[in-house]
Amino acid sequence: MRDVSIIGVGQTPVREHWELSLRELAVQAVLAAMQDAHVEDVDALYVGNMLSGELTRQEHLGALIADQLGLTGIAAMKIEAACGAGGSAVHAAHLAVASGQYRRVAVVGVEKMTDLWNGSVTAGLAMAADGEYEAANGISFVGLNAMMMRRYMYEYDLVEEDFAPFALNAHANAVHNPNAMFRKAVTLEQFTKAKKVADPISLFDSSPICDGAAALILSRSENLNGNAARAISIAASTSATDTLALHDRQDPLWLRAVELSSIKAYAQAGITPQDIDLFELHDAFSIVAPMSLEAAGFAQRGAGAYLARDGGISIHGKLPISTMGGLKARGHPIGASGVYQVVEAVQQLRGEAGKNQVPNARVAMTQSLGGVAATAVTHILKGK
Amino acid sequence: MRDVSIIGVGQTPVREHWELSLRELAVQAVLAAMQDAHVEDVDALYVGNMLSGELTRQEHLGALIADQLGLTGIAAMKIEAACGAGGSAVHAAHLAVASGQYRRVAVVGVEKMTDLWNGSVTAGLAMAADGEYEAANGISFVGLNAMMMRRYMYEYDLVEEDFAPFALNAHANAVHNPNAMFRKAVTLEQFTKAKKVADPISLFDSSPICDGAAALILSRSENLNGNAARAISIAASTSATDTLALHDRQDPLWLRAVELSSIKAYAQAGITPQDIDLFELHDAFSIVAPMSLEAAGFAQRGAGAYLARDGGISIHGKLPISTMGGLKARGHPIGASGVYQVVEAVQQLRGEAGKNQVPNARVAMTQSLGGVAATAVTHILKGK
Repeated sequence: MRDVSIIGVGQTPVREHWELSLRELAVQAVLAAMQDAHVEDVDALYVGNMLSGELTRQEHLGALIADQLGLTGIAAMKIEAACGAGGSAVHAAHLAVASGQYRRVAVVGVEKMTDLWNGSVTAGLAMAADGEYEAANGISFVGLNAMMMRRYMYEYDLVEEDFAPFALNAHANAVHNPNAMFRKAVTLEQFTKAKKVADPISLFDSSPICDGAAALILSRSENLNGNAARAISIAASTSATDTLALHDRQDPLWLRAVELSSIKAYAQAGITPQDIDLFELHDAFSIVAPMSLEAAGFAQRGAGAYLARDGGISIHGKLPISTMGGLKARGHPIGASGVYQVVEAVQQLRGEAGKNQVPNARVAMTQSLGGVAATAVTHILKGK
Repeated sequence: MRDVSIIGVGQTPVREHWELSLRELAVQAVLAAMQDAHVEDVDALYVGNMLSGELTRQEHLGALIADQLGLTGIAAMKIEAACGAGGSAVHAAHLAVASGQYRRVAVVGVEKMTDLWNGSVTAGLAMAADGEYEAANGISFVGLNAMMMRRYMYEYDLVEEDFAPFALNAHANAVHNPNAMFRKAVTLEQFTKAKKVADPISLFDSSPICDGAAALILSRSENLNGNAARAISIAASTSATDTLALHDRQDPLWLRAVELSSIKAYAQAGITPQDIDLFELHDAFSIVAPMSLEAAGFAQRGAGAYLARDGGISIHGKLPISTMGGLKARGHPIGASGVYQVVEAVQQLRGEAGKNQVPNARVAMTQSLGGVAATAVTHILKGK
């Protein structure tokens, strides 16, 4: 496998972008990444997206965005893996460069969830779950996560407040990220008073519906086109799956896909969890954070929430997570989130994360999940 | 790049499958391919599909189908490129094995267009075109092809009947393919009397709405697990794009993406068009066949239809096309068609095409198009 590096990153702010369409968001992010890499073309484009058909009445995003970029002719395709579409697009792009067929490719994750042409966001998101056995029976995606959280609280004797540190950390970090959607700190009192969305999940346990696009330029490491000084190496790119339906899992409190993709990633990178300096995990709902920490090997079973106490997950903590706000506060434009995570990890490893800079960040891990972690895509990045 | 071979193929018949769901079709095809390859597992799964969200209210097909196959744990994702989704999935899978990360992967193209949970097939297919500048103004996908055909007839002084050989050839070949949807020959009289769907495109110029799934098992060529005797080598796998909107093309009668992906494929395989023994092209509408023959280098501009005269494209002709019925008569389950083409090319190169066997078939080309050829994915396969 050829070594692959990230030589450019770009992003739009995560917002309700009433003035920008899906294609405009994607183009802005890719052009920013190309400018960052000082390149004017790529050989191929991988687009991570889940709901463009449902909400914007547009499929065929590969050709569309290549066209809008003025790069008509290049290879292009859309990658979908529900909320893990962004990470999966990075994985596919990584393999494309690692194969040797493409020298340099762009990845863009994009989702347009406001200003709809059609459909419903809630019904759309339910397509991440099992349509015949879950969604058709009326359960929403947040409902599935709520059942998982309720069971987790029961088994491990926790209360809602035990999950507060994840939301508080994400919001605190988002304050200094100009691209984050919610740049306001949240207090414990605000967290405990928040209304329930799907009991026990409250508003402050939930990532928002929003628009955004994030992009990367991937290149063979052997030819970095003058970007050697700032290039970030992809040390691992792995993907794994679990049963789509939550009720099919022998152990519904263990994220098997997270475990498998993490183990494969550590092996590929030749490191252990102890070597990770920061972890951009998939905090779409608070409950996913401790469960990810456990399955990825950072905490014992049922002890993920303890890791978050006393600032353990803050920028200066033992394992900084959601360092630029995470899905919770930077925002979660579904198919884009997995690419935002990698963009932010690159910012950290370059030492360009401003007030959110993790000191001496050398190794970063990102994890993009689809559905209730039925897909898990893990990347490990290494700086200089 | 590692050499990649196809060691197993599988398919369901193309039908209106009122008794089989999308997931059941996909599982049947993959299990057949795994049985054909004598393997019981794969490292990753690539699913080509366009309309599962629109028509079946189901996304996240990668995890879903891996799960239904009993292969939970493997990497999986869905690839979308409109009607070129199947070819694009083969391309992504090829790169995955060529990279060295995966030893053996499955590709399945699947589309379920009857027995809908939701939506409209015509509105769904229009998402292959430019939503803002084409579909939103009311033009259907067949309407775009009709405009292209009308212009082609005007420029090159042709009449509808000149396109008949493409339909007649496809239907004649489908008679002997048990997996084809329309196993009936069509006469010139029937062709000329057919009702218009979108003038000048008639019913017999059009591929049908249908259900089906086709699958491949791809392996490193260096370790074929006992399949060396029947393995078919992937000599080229390429993809290219054109403007998404037809009106944006400087020359609307030239399929630039077809040209680019073909040129790249010939170079990668180290051959010329003269070396191709059969060509599974994307005859979703008759007009696409001559235009593909021209852009792929088999005919002069405007002369594609002449190639079809006097049996030139029949099984025993100079360049056999649509040898198992093509999209026209085998059927065109959108995201599956590009995989069906490769399955059929493998049948030919193995000498297992029965009454449709192309004599001495050694080199086959397949081409999967998305939209009005805004995406073109070309594969060249080599037998023993």
